[in-house]
Amino acid sequence: MKPEIKQLRDKLKGLGLNGMIVSNPISIKYLTDLDAEGILIIDPKENLFVTDSRYIESVNNNLTIDSEIVACDRKEMSKYDYEAIFEGLGDIGFEENYVTYANYKKYLEMFQVNLVETEGLIESQRIVKEPEEIEKLKKACEISDKAFEYIIKNIKKGMTEKQIAFELENYMLSNGADGIAFPSIVASGENSSMPHAVPTDRVIKENDIILFDFGAKYQGYHSDCSRTVFVGNIPDEQRKAYDFVLDEQQKIIDNFKEGTNIKAIIRNRETDYSLENIEVMHSFGHGVGLEIHEAPTLNSKVDNVLKKNSIVTVEPGVYFAGKFGIRIEDTCLIEKNQCITLTKIGKTITTINLI
Amino acid sequence: MKPEIKQLRDKLKGLGLNGMIVSNPISIKYLTDLDAEGILIIDPKENLFVTDSRYIESVNNNLTIDSEIVACDRKEMSKYDYEAIFEGLGDIGFEENYVTYANYKKYLEMFQVNLVETEGLIESQRIVKEPEEIEKLKKACEISDKAFEYIIKNIKKGMTEKQIAFELENYMLSNGADGIAFPSIVASGENSSMPHAVPTDRVIKENDIILFDFGAKYQGYHSDCSRTVFVGNIPDEQRKAYDFVLDEQQKIIDNFKEGTNIKAIIRNRETDYSLENIEVMHSFGHGVGLEIHEAPTLNSKVDNVLKKNSIVTVEPGVYFAGKFGIRIEDTCLIEKNQCITLTKIGKTITTINLI
Repeated sequence: MKPEIKQLRDKLKGLGLNGMIVSNPISIKYLTDLDAEGILIIDPKENLFVTDSRYIESVNNNLTIDSEIVACDRKEMSKYDYEAIFEGLGDIGFEENYVTYANYKKYLEMFQVNLVETEGLIESQRIVKEPEEIEKLKKACEISDKAFEYIIKNIKKGMTEKQIAFELENYMLSNGADGIAFPSIVASGENSSMPHAVPTDRVIKENDIILFDFGAKYQGYHSDCSRTVFVGNIPDEQRKAYDFVLDEQQKIIDNFKEGTNIKAIIRNRETDYSLENIEVMHSFGHGVGLEIHEAPTLNSKVDNVLKKNSIVTVEPGVYFAGKFGIRIEDTCLIEKNQCITLTKIGKTITTINLI
Repeated sequence: MKPEIKQLRDKLKGLGLNGMIVSNPISIKYLTDLDAEGILIIDPKENLFVTDSRYIESVNNNLTIDSEIVACDRKEMSKYDYEAIFEGLGDIGFEENYVTYANYKKYLEMFQVNLVETEGLIESQRIVKEPEEIEKLKKACEISDKAFEYIIKNIKKGMTEKQIAFELENYMLSNGADGIAFPSIVASGENSSMPHAVPTDRVIKENDIILFDFGAKYQGYHSDCSRTVFVGNIPDEQRKAYDFVLDEQQKIIDNFKEGTNIKAIIRNRETDYSLENIEVMHSFGHGVGLEIHEAPTLNSKVDNVLKKNSIVTVEPGVYFAGKFGIRIEDTCLIEKNQCITLTKIGKTITTINLI
């Protein structure tokens, strides 16, 4: 049995739950390594994966005796089979943050149990990465780092944001990525002032600022990185803003390690922002792994302590509507005594030449 | 106001609902053309889109006076603002097939209303495509058709399934697609017997069968197409199976038009399958549009009548575990008197040469 399932079973016991219905495909991938639609049923006797005829052959090919997971085609499951699974077991957990209201009602009917909210149990467990998960995340970061190094040397005169994004993504896909982590942001000039800009047909010009936000997906795991670079001259206000953002990012990284109180660190950053009269336009970071955004969130509202072997992004940014924006972001590993950036592209102020 | 919102407002009135909370980003894209996270609130006075600071600038740039949509940053919304929206309005619709159980409870608290299930109201409306939607779907089909024509002329000796899938997707992305419709299936030899195979490192060999299932995404709309081709000799049992599948597909296409009872047509196909002792491994098709799988489903269980200007796939397949599989699929437009395939790649039995 994967350590991830063992751990979940222990936690369910601790909560007084005799079983759980796992519905989120991300949770299923995490617990079983399977890429298939279905529901994973954790009950005292077994781990049962109910899938459908499209997946059953490949699921059976991927499971071994060590998986300790029984797979079955939902066509083989009768109304009575579902009712028998949890019979007499009382409260059963479900994923209230994934299951729709319609499916909640369907499960009640199918399993004839009392469904209990598990308050992000699996999401919390996923915060602390297993060694193999960290290896996959490192590999994803390596791929996106190389793609960025390639792209900033290959921006030709006349290229548009869209073309640059395409080349960047194409490089990742041709160099080991299974997919892109999310649609890349390449935002130039005034477009950079929108934190969530979509690449446009705007042509890169001399004296532009370009904000990149991109990542690679490797065996299900995501990297996430932002860099802001300059073409030609750098106006003083942009240089000043860049130094501010870089300094804020470094302060967070310097303070992050196992046990850090996230709220306190982020509150200090918000104070820095308000002293400069700069609006905080988005969070300072987020967990990353099988999802591009996952627990923990980095904000000043929730009391949250950093855990060893968790992976988070650190991404302060400043945005001046209609003018420009700057963001610097790394994917970082939290260790006992420090925070290590897994994305390793240089952050000193960078001017690129159009070729 | 987009005709899609007007139509929804009329339908809500017909159901005796005074408003609706729209949460699914696909519904929001459909109703507003906006690509942004948030919730769209339809109330008697206005259409209100509550988004966050990451999107507010780009949302405002994309809305015009004709949109008749007010956008606001959720930071500006107080507890009382939310409560005031539907005050005294009674039952309000929500998307029970999208909203999680956790968010259902949150909405109850936020809006202080009685939430009523709308039974796939927007999904049903989306079945009948507007003219601009059909144009976008046609363009997506054109792109994937060209990519397939390219790839079958460019399979080199020694290429793996993964490499072929990459080249196919790369061609679509370089020739007008905004994205791929879904991860492509390129399944060769015995791998083709898994309806949902994932491309592997298996090298294409002489006398292989290759099953392709792929599509392009264009302005949010998806094409979906499957073809099965042969390298070198075609064993008799594979030729016979191919003819069977092609014949079954043609029977469906010949029978599909406005008003067709889907159940009856599919039931006839299931009879053909059982006469040949072949298992039906997946549905014979599905609606396609802003989602790769959307309403209607094509099966023999639900009484469903085809509507004019709906777009569906027609995709019979046969699979012999550990041996081979064959699927032929087109994206089709339902018209008053006929069904037109929008994917137009030839379907006569095809042998390709490795180059």
